[in-house]
Amino acid sequence: MTAAASDSLAQRLLAGDKRALARAITLVESDDPAGWDLVREVYPHTGKAAILGFTGAPGAGKSTLIGALVKNRRALDREVAVLSIDPSSPFTKGALLGDRIRLTEHFLDPGVFIRSMANRGALGGLSEAALQGALLMDAAGKQDVFLETVGVGQAEIDIIDHADTVVLVLMPGSGDSIQALKAGIMEIPDIIVVNKADHPLTDTMVREIRGVLSLAPQRGWRVPIVKTEAVRGKGIEELVEKLDEHRAFIQEEGTLSERRKRNLQNEVLAICTARLRRDLEARLKEDASYQALLERVVKRELDPASAATTILAEIEGADVAARGPGSVA
Amino acid sequence: MTAAASDSLAQRLLAGDKRALARAITLVESDDPAGWDLVREVYPHTGKAAILGFTGAPGAGKSTLIGALVKNRRALDREVAVLSIDPSSPFTKGALLGDRIRLTEHFLDPGVFIRSMANRGALGGLSEAALQGALLMDAAGKQDVFLETVGVGQAEIDIIDHADTVVLVLMPGSGDSIQALKAGIMEIPDIIVVNKADHPLTDTMVREIRGVLSLAPQRGWRVPIVKTEAVRGKGIEELVEKLDEHRAFIQEEGTLSERRKRNLQNEVLAICTARLRRDLEARLKEDASYQALLERVVKRELDPASAATTILAEIEGADVAARGPGSVA
Repeated sequence: MTAAASDSLAQRLLAGDKRALARAITLVESDDPAGWDLVREVYPHTGKAAILGFTGAPGAGKSTLIGALVKNRRALDREVAVLSIDPSSPFTKGALLGDRIRLTEHFLDPGVFIRSMANRGALGGLSEAALQGALLMDAAGKQDVFLETVGVGQAEIDIIDHADTVVLVLMPGSGDSIQALKAGIMEIPDIIVVNKADHPLTDTMVREIRGVLSLAPQRGWRVPIVKTEAVRGKGIEELVEKLDEHRAFIQEEGTLSERRKRNLQNEVLAICTARLRRDLEARLKEDASYQALLERVVKRELDPASAATTILAEIEGADVAARGPGSVA
Repeated sequence: MTAAASDSLAQRLLAGDKRALARAITLVESDDPAGWDLVREVYPHTGKAAILGFTGAPGAGKSTLIGALVKNRRALDREVAVLSIDPSSPFTKGALLGDRIRLTEHFLDPGVFIRSMANRGALGGLSEAALQGALLMDAAGKQDVFLETVGVGQAEIDIIDHADTVVLVLMPGSGDSIQALKAGIMEIPDIIVVNKADHPLTDTMVREIRGVLSLAPQRGWRVPIVKTEAVRGKGIEELVEKLDEHRAFIQEEGTLSERRKRNLQNEVLAICTARLRRDLEARLKEDASYQALLERVVKRELDPASAATTILAEIEGADVAARGPGSVA
């Protein structure tokens, strides 16, 4: 791609052109250098959108909930984008699961941009690609950016960390996410939604969540529990209210800028780490002494951690090795 | 810990002492250098155990299935260990979910070692700690090591990659894992179990899995689909048969050693990367120019990828930066 073409793509993106945005995200997702150049170019125009993260186990109803929220935002004439990082999402598999939810209407609305990401192996990983995608949506003038991810694994939680407001979506009768909260694996979100609230176990679940929250340190913001039935649109107004309240809270308290600073710092570190790893892999591919070292690991003569110590010592001098545990005596 | 104490711990571990094994895993999990030293010491005694990985969404019945397999292995008088990487696992929360499954009997069996890991943030991450844990179990003379993890996220799949045989556990009516397979997010496992096979949607699911498998490249091993009802012990014999067949297959074909070589290589790289990141974080913490750079990112003057390029260029010279995308022009 020539510089001129890239310029024009950036201009079209900043003007809100849907196809330019789609093209830009594809560039980022496929780790095309032009994608990174583009993000650099439009980055000064970001920071305006509200980034709303939705996480929760498969089947909890995240997509249906986001669908209802999109409808609400559109009624206020706000520009909306949805970025779904979930191979099982109806946003990805709309045609297959179209009967389960009604989102096709939004696909035809020019004020709504819907995109999924499921690719693995982009530079810096899916989490980095997702943030770049969100930045592009922000630059394209989307006022609300919904990030959707299956929040069971750590990689997915890293993605949701890019959001200004994190919503955990649970459904009655499935205690797994609560177990994750209890175990401290998952950080306490900003808002908890109990969806499919017509289920007889709803109130049991709400009590259980209250129990977990009572043990967590409260720092100013009191995490609300909102009961919804997304398929019927029930509870959506209350959820919108809580989302707005949280936004007002973090803006007043200055935690929005704090949170964004922390997220951007993590982002910079993650990109650095990914590049260091890629660089390391490239070096080792052609290194005979590394192959010999690996052979010793395979023969159970040298353990993986000691092999790592040796490699780092060779590459960077005694500097890193001295600080590493399990140094080769 | 003194060298003498560590020696004696290694000796007790190699002799199969359960408490020594528990202590050793705690050292590894808490990133104690003594833990890494210990793994180095006992590493030549590893490589004998069969490492069996079980992954699948929460609620699919992995733990119950492993419980049934443990019973089967114990009847053959084999020494068994279970390492559960899952905050929602009954192995972790035995007391809470004890009514759901019957595993307490195994806790009292001296031939069975059960351990959970849920800690985040150990050097190299949970995946590395899990491998170290598995190596310790192997060194302690356990003949079958079961790794259990919730396989929805990427981090969990990385953990299961340490296994010789990977079993994906599905339950009828929940198509999320199949979506992950279809999307290519999850690699095709060695064995697929459809648990809770008394469910009316079982045969629909089996057909759907066959459809996905027919699209996947078959390399010698034909992935079997086993229907089980783990709570009733149904289908366990057939699963054991398939596990044994797969083991025989990878041993004959030489793919066991290939697979282990690949896994160990990934492991060495992962440990290197984790140390590079830790080193980077330590450097940046005290670096004023990094703080200034970050401030520019926060002010939306410089995008995260360009900031990463600048940092790497400063640390390692122009070397890495030249190869990185989004170089600062």
